[in-house]
Amino acid sequence: MKILSINAGSSSLKFTLFELPEEKVLISGYFEKIGISDSFYSIKINGEKIKKEATLETHSDAVKILIDELLNYKVINSLDEIDGIGHRIVHGGDKFSSSVIISDEVIDVVRELIPLAPLHNPANLIGIEAFKNALPNTPMVGVFDTAFHQTMPEENYLYSVPYSWYRDYKIRKYGFHGTSHKYITKVMQEKLGKENINIINAHVGSGGSLCCVKDGKCFDTTMGFSPNAGITMGTRCGDIDYSIIPFYMEKTNTSLKDVDTILNKQSGLLGISEKFSDHRDIEAAISEGDRLSTLANNIYVNKVAEYIAKYFLELEGNVDAITLTAGTGENAANFRAELVEKLACFGIKLDKEVNNSIAGFKDVHEGVITTSDSKIPVYVIPTDEELMIALDTYNLINQ
Amino acid sequence: MKILSINAGSSSLKFTLFELPEEKVLISGYFEKIGISDSFYSIKINGEKIKKEATLETHSDAVKILIDELLNYKVINSLDEIDGIGHRIVHGGDKFSSSVIISDEVIDVVRELIPLAPLHNPANLIGIEAFKNALPNTPMVGVFDTAFHQTMPEENYLYSVPYSWYRDYKIRKYGFHGTSHKYITKVMQEKLGKENINIINAHVGSGGSLCCVKDGKCFDTTMGFSPNAGITMGTRCGDIDYSIIPFYMEKTNTSLKDVDTILNKQSGLLGISEKFSDHRDIEAAISEGDRLSTLANNIYVNKVAEYIAKYFLELEGNVDAITLTAGTGENAANFRAELVEKLACFGIKLDKEVNNSIAGFKDVHEGVITTSDSKIPVYVIPTDEELMIALDTYNLINQ
Repeated sequence: MKILSINAGSSSLKFTLFELPEEKVLISGYFEKIGISDSFYSIKINGEKIKKEATLETHSDAVKILIDELLNYKVINSLDEIDGIGHRIVHGGDKFSSSVIISDEVIDVVRELIPLAPLHNPANLIGIEAFKNALPNTPMVGVFDTAFHQTMPEENYLYSVPYSWYRDYKIRKYGFHGTSHKYITKVMQEKLGKENINIINAHVGSGGSLCCVKDGKCFDTTMGFSPNAGITMGTRCGDIDYSIIPFYMEKTNTSLKDVDTILNKQSGLLGISEKFSDHRDIEAAISEGDRLSTLANNIYVNKVAEYIAKYFLELEGNVDAITLTAGTGENAANFRAELVEKLACFGIKLDKEVNNSIAGFKDVHEGVITTSDSKIPVYVIPTDEELMIALDTYNLINQ
Repeated sequence: MKILSINAGSSSLKFTLFELPEEKVLISGYFEKIGISDSFYSIKINGEKIKKEATLETHSDAVKILIDELLNYKVINSLDEIDGIGHRIVHGGDKFSSSVIISDEVIDVVRELIPLAPLHNPANLIGIEAFKNALPNTPMVGVFDTAFHQTMPEENYLYSVPYSWYRDYKIRKYGFHGTSHKYITKVMQEKLGKENINIINAHVGSGGSLCCVKDGKCFDTTMGFSPNAGITMGTRCGDIDYSIIPFYMEKTNTSLKDVDTILNKQSGLLGISEKFSDHRDIEAAISEGDRLSTLANNIYVNKVAEYIAKYFLELEGNVDAITLTAGTGENAANFRAELVEKLACFGIKLDKEVNNSIAGFKDVHEGVITTSDSKIPVYVIPTDEELMIALDTYNLINQ
């Protein structure tokens, strides 16, 4: 069965076509700068990457080219070979606690939730509409970044603000990266051979969040009402004392909107280091003795470790595993070593050799980076949100 | 030696006169509604409380009455018996890492720091000026709420925002309640018989903050640039995702200034419970089954426990003691029990009987509320910021 996994942004469209249940990637790629000048697309098939320029005025143009290329590369012989399409949708509010078959009603609810994700949900809807027009008879599924976190208890999702903010405006912690956290939970359930696992998953990439999984379900997470909460990220500040905002605004005569942009685009590793948002660049600068890059990295490691300590407590010490995933988690051996060594007080012990062996560029993608007598094992597991979207789609259309 | 401890607010003035080094309170009291109608003052001497109305147009009026009453009650026979005056000053920025003899230069610096504490520092300065005029020859000492926290490392006091915010505008974590955290540290150094103690002190009252003390010095604290960060408080929100602010402003057409007021005055326990900011009222409501009061209490306990877990990690598990102080910490046995039971995963075990025996109204003010086999002892210790101010004053003028 062929399932297309789609992630539509405001000017981009990423896709992966899977053969399921074999979990085989048939073709993948992305369209960029849709509706902007210099638009192009890139396709990866049989280990080969092809980049082409194209006029992409709308997402529908991208979808049309995508279908033509699928036929062209003979990945499919006719459109009805695409059995289902899974769409990433950023915000499901408290309306969706799992993936759903996309109906007109679902589209209406996603539209109603636009105020909670003003940049993302409209883009996701554009992607849905483009495929609905091109492939009107193919079942489509919505997979929400927030859905996995809907099992959080009230104590963990409410802020200590007037309760009416929640009642009247749904102001609460939603959490994001849910598809990644769900995928890692699924992988770990298989590895550990049980459903009711307690794990702490750290998705550390350019964005980053941790998820406390209790009995196989999300119990807590670090992102909040927005994705700019929790750990230090590539360009996002994560946790701050909000009072610095009015102070900075007054000192510099900056608008709240512009401060929000700074806190999202010019903060985090980039803000502290004054140079790099990518942790690989930070590591290179550290090796050259750059003070602010070292500081940025230390703050980053501390923040991740701090939330692991918090979730250790929330799981009452009963932690089956800690898992590290996404760009930094999957590849940065130094980062992982510093993190795991900070966790020594929980009886966690690094296996340096295994840790150093795992990285994408070494073609070793996963493993347990702690010693056999470590009280809690730490795993490196590559995340795969595209596959999770495809799997949810596959499961729903086969129900 | 007689030392006067002073805490001047914008319309209030609190005082305690100590005999030192005996640490004996000779007289204490407060003036309220200075510069407002219905002003009055209250004096406590020999276990008796006297409340009187008085016209208090300025803080100087209060100081004049204070001196008259000291003579009237024969606590002193002449003004030169007051050997020193210690003033609480809220914000010392990064200029003061300990208490100092107040000079004209010190006053200038405290004035320069007004932007960091626009409500408090001006009031503290008014108090200083009033005493300077009344007792020009008495040495005075400034004791800063922020000073104890100045030993925090950069990694713990910087936010993940552009580094220039710190360089250009001194935006960083300062921490508050430093005088209380310092006092508890001093008491615990005496109790444990060593200087280099590692403790986690939870000052939980209507305001609240935790302090991670490493080697007898502040290593981290929960309040930040402002006092509205960290744990849930009586009416303050503590940690939030700042993104809820622009969202709420847009939904309700509220100004940033008014939102800040809501987050300071109508949030925390009051905000969640929709009824009570005082934890005693929350407890009473819980016993009557009030859902939102129970929720508020659970969030409150979780937040304190979360930071203890964080500081356990920062101390690499080497924690000599956890200490609970201030209104809730000193008196709320249920709160303490819930908190300590949450810490079971650190090998901490509650002694229910001792815990239940300690409360101000039971006239048992301190003790160890964990069993002898608890891996970390939890102490209840009453804080005494007034005494700490007097002691710092005494030590500085006797140097």
